Amino acid sequence: MIDRAGLEVLSEEECFRLLTKAPIGRIVFTDRALPAIQPVNFAVHDRAVIIRVAANSRLATAASNAVVAFEVDEFDRDGGTRTGWDVVVVGHAAPITDPDQLREARQLDLRPWAPGIREHYIRIDLRMISGRRILPAADGGTA
Amino acid sequence: MIDRAGLEVLSEEECFRLLTKAPIGRIVFTDRALPAIQPVNFAVHDRAVIIRVAANSRLATAASNAVVAFEVDEFDRDGGTRTGWDVVVVGHAAPITDPDQLREARQLDLRPWAPGIREHYIRIDLRMISGRRILPAADGGTA
Repeated sequence: MIDRAGLEVLSEEECFRLLTKAPIGRIVFTDRALPAIQPVNFAVHDRAVIIRVAANSRLATAASNAVVAFEVDEFDRDGGTRTGWDVVVVGHAAPITDPDQLREARQLDLRPWAPGIREHYIRIDLRMISGRRILPAADGGTA
Repeated sequence: MIDRAGLEVLSEEECFRLLTKAPIGRIVFTDRALPAIQPVNFAVHDRAVIIRVAANSRLATAASNAVVAFEVDEFDRDGGTRTGWDVVVVGHAAPITDPDQLREARQLDLRPWAPGIREHYIRIDLRMISGRRILPAADGGTA
């Protein structure tokens, strides 16, 4: 299916597959009434995005019982083909406090890229997931 | 300088340089009271990020006299080195309506990747720009 912007609308299954493969995502939230975004590495588990954060961090505060967006994408960096895709999740974010869920989260392959101790886990429900792909231009991408 | 999360804080000059080089950025806004994010290509001109949007698009509506965030990043996709950087702009977004500014915007190298007619230009002021870099881990990145 093509949307009104001319982009291919990805199926939920395809969105989920792309999300699972991505090494880095971006969490979108509100920080002191301003839009904020932060790249994080993550795991997908039990129909949720799981991230690790430091206690008292900006992210731990912002993603505590709030609706956030979470985005992954991949674009042709050199721009030669001008193609790419993005997948966006919108869902409720909350710290994992249940002992069983916390045990499961700790067993995920989720080592933070950034240094420092990050022993809080945030769970973002995959309630809404959508994605789009930019198809190669009909003109072959000539400028 | 290293921040309390252990990441290198980039100078404003370095942020600006990285922003100018990036082929794709992500605009962060609010859409019907929910956090939203959309990748776009863009140009940097006169201390502002300039994007092209279609009239009556979700983005044209959302970025009409609102504070938005705009993010660019680059991470080691394979994850081998677990390094990368991100730069975030927070600023006021507004459609370009001034004839002189519009003429300048039309002369930028700003051909949309997505198909369709996009003849509205949005300007995001570079009022706040900040960035961080994840340095290679001291343990050499071994898992």
